[in-house]
Amino acid sequence: MTKTISSLLVWFLSVLTNNLLAQKETSFIFTDAKQLTLIGKALSTDSFFHRIDTVAFPGIPPAVKRLLTHSAGLAISFETNSTRIAAKWCTSPQGPGNNMTAIAQEGMDLYIKRNGQWQYAGVARPSTHECNEFVVAAHMAPGDKECLLYLPLYDETLSVQIGVEAGARLTAKPNPFKKNILVYGSSIVHGASASRPGLAYPARLSRETGYNVINLGVSGNAKMEAAVAEMIATMPMDAFILDCVPNSSPEQVTERTANLVNTIRAKHPDAPIIAIQSIIREGGNFDESIANRVAQQNGNFLREIQELQRKDKHLYLVTAENLIGDDHEGTTDGTHPNDLGFDRMLQKIRPAVLEILGSHGI
Amino acid sequence: MTKTISSLLVWFLSVLTNNLLAQKETSFIFTDAKQLTLIGKALSTDSFFHRIDTVAFPGIPPAVKRLLTHSAGLAISFETNSTRIAAKWCTSPQGPGNNMTAIAQEGMDLYIKRNGQWQYAGVARPSTHECNEFVVAAHMAPGDKECLLYLPLYDETLSVQIGVEAGARLTAKPNPFKKNILVYGSSIVHGASASRPGLAYPARLSRETGYNVINLGVSGNAKMEAAVAEMIATMPMDAFILDCVPNSSPEQVTERTANLVNTIRAKHPDAPIIAIQSIIREGGNFDESIANRVAQQNGNFLREIQELQRKDKHLYLVTAENLIGDDHEGTTDGTHPNDLGFDRMLQKIRPAVLEILGSHGI
Repeated sequence: MTKTISSLLVWFLSVLTNNLLAQKETSFIFTDAKQLTLIGKALSTDSFFHRIDTVAFPGIPPAVKRLLTHSAGLAISFETNSTRIAAKWCTSPQGPGNNMTAIAQEGMDLYIKRNGQWQYAGVARPSTHECNEFVVAAHMAPGDKECLLYLPLYDETLSVQIGVEAGARLTAKPNPFKKNILVYGSSIVHGASASRPGLAYPARLSRETGYNVINLGVSGNAKMEAAVAEMIATMPMDAFILDCVPNSSPEQVTERTANLVNTIRAKHPDAPIIAIQSIIREGGNFDESIANRVAQQNGNFLREIQELQRKDKHLYLVTAENLIGDDHEGTTDGTHPNDLGFDRMLQKIRPAVLEILGSHGI
Repeated sequence: MTKTISSLLVWFLSVLTNNLLAQKETSFIFTDAKQLTLIGKALSTDSFFHRIDTVAFPGIPPAVKRLLTHSAGLAISFETNSTRIAAKWCTSPQGPGNNMTAIAQEGMDLYIKRNGQWQYAGVARPSTHECNEFVVAAHMAPGDKECLLYLPLYDETLSVQIGVEAGARLTAKPNPFKKNILVYGSSIVHGASASRPGLAYPARLSRETGYNVINLGVSGNAKMEAAVAEMIATMPMDAFILDCVPNSSPEQVTERTANLVNTIRAKHPDAPIIAIQSIIREGGNFDESIANRVAQQNGNFLREIQELQRKDKHLYLVTAENLIGDDHEGTTDGTHPNDLGFDRMLQKIRPAVLEILGSHGI
């Protein structure tokens, strides 16, 4: 009997110790991301995870306002010596569209700097459409790690907490990127159909050039409205990329392009403005209606930009030619570049940006 | 009063005419895909949309059986002169994992041959997890179109109907691909995280080489079990690609590789067998546990293959080196190549396959 009790006691202590050990190995100390550095905003806002304080711009369309609550292009900059990193985060209840992954839409991904390069370290996988917790990276070597955690592309982020092991240091880091480049555009800029947040093309452009590239993608709604042009013109940018042809009708392209460029130019007399034609939609490979519309959009845009370039020496054009390659495999759905299409866009846009900004001493 | 009645009558007739016209423009005549040609099966089955009749192979693990009900790699081959094509289809009620799009998991995509090349034409977007209807392509030029409609990658397909305009011809076409190459592998072969079905790498390899490449990807379950090896050996193939390292533990790699190769070889004395190391998981960039495991898997696989190659003159190895590039952007979640990673895999695997099969006169 005593032996049995003693055995039970040993068993109980063993279970307790194992549980405590397990807890020690898997537990995290969480810190609110609001105590760290948020990068990727065009303007500061009271709503931490919104891209813009749209209350300050009452004239912009409601759909644009709603989309600017999405955390596309935002990231948390921090440093830690933890050997594992977790995240707890909440988003709005919406789920992904049929052309995107849940990781891209409402999940997150982590990059760590190694030998001067930002390198993929892990994803925060959502398992529900609202609040989630996930171990993003584990079993890492000891030592300091400079981190960027990219927030959900196509959802409103409500809260983010970053977890590290007990006793580890977790501190805010300054924005690692210099000079501000705004990318105003459609769902393609917004990030559909990148497979995770860090693969949206403005985010890749930022990591690959060192510029602070800001995502002002507004899915389906980049229509160059006058109020949006005025909002953009107020932003403290060193350069502007305009990738807003896909959402504008051919007529809107003709009516609105000059106003957008001139409104920005009035406030930024020397800033490079880089205009990009729409990618040739693969949906128009056989659908002649789609093909004709894109040809009209791009034709009208070319005419407007060339006309503006006669007076504007800092206005540049990147054409659609070969922008997503020539094998027709670079989109998810005929409209939205997949990660292959984005890679090809970057192969054309990145050297153009580097050359143009370099020539301006930026 | 008479005037009002007359106006109402004109209005009513106008609405009626417009509705009839709209119906004529948008209505489709649907044909069951079972009347057309299904390609991509390793063996014929009674269950039209299942890859294998697993009843014939009682020894294979239940998880493998379940995954072989997924329609990964299957496509409908047909020809039509319709200027628009629609699809009605039903799948099981399951939805996509967090690393895949709904289009890839339970949707479809259409390719049409142009100038001897298969070219993207449209997607069938799911809006529910069960039965859907979608116009895949419209406003196409008149004339014959040779079509391939790829079925859902990660779901059991229950029915497919293809719609064309009234009066248009819709006929079965023979399989456009020649010679049979089986690709046995993990979720990477199965198609996670291709952004749509036609971008899974076996499908791209097929279109880009003209070989009939068959997808035997079994997500998470490509573990080279003896019963699976025996099933594979019964298949009437001209070549075999073994991309099954990612799911097998380092010990399983050592214990099972020789049996898999030798079991196939016993039934196919001259067929090329192309073994592929696991991609270097980007999840192991900082997680040393993941990195070590992949290194062990690949090290053990290399040893086994090299030992087998001493006696087997038709056994080839594609190494992991640079298989998904060197910028660490080629995966969705650290494990599964995105479309960029698949493109890089193909840049290495495609020339290897062409060279090896060419040297065998296949």
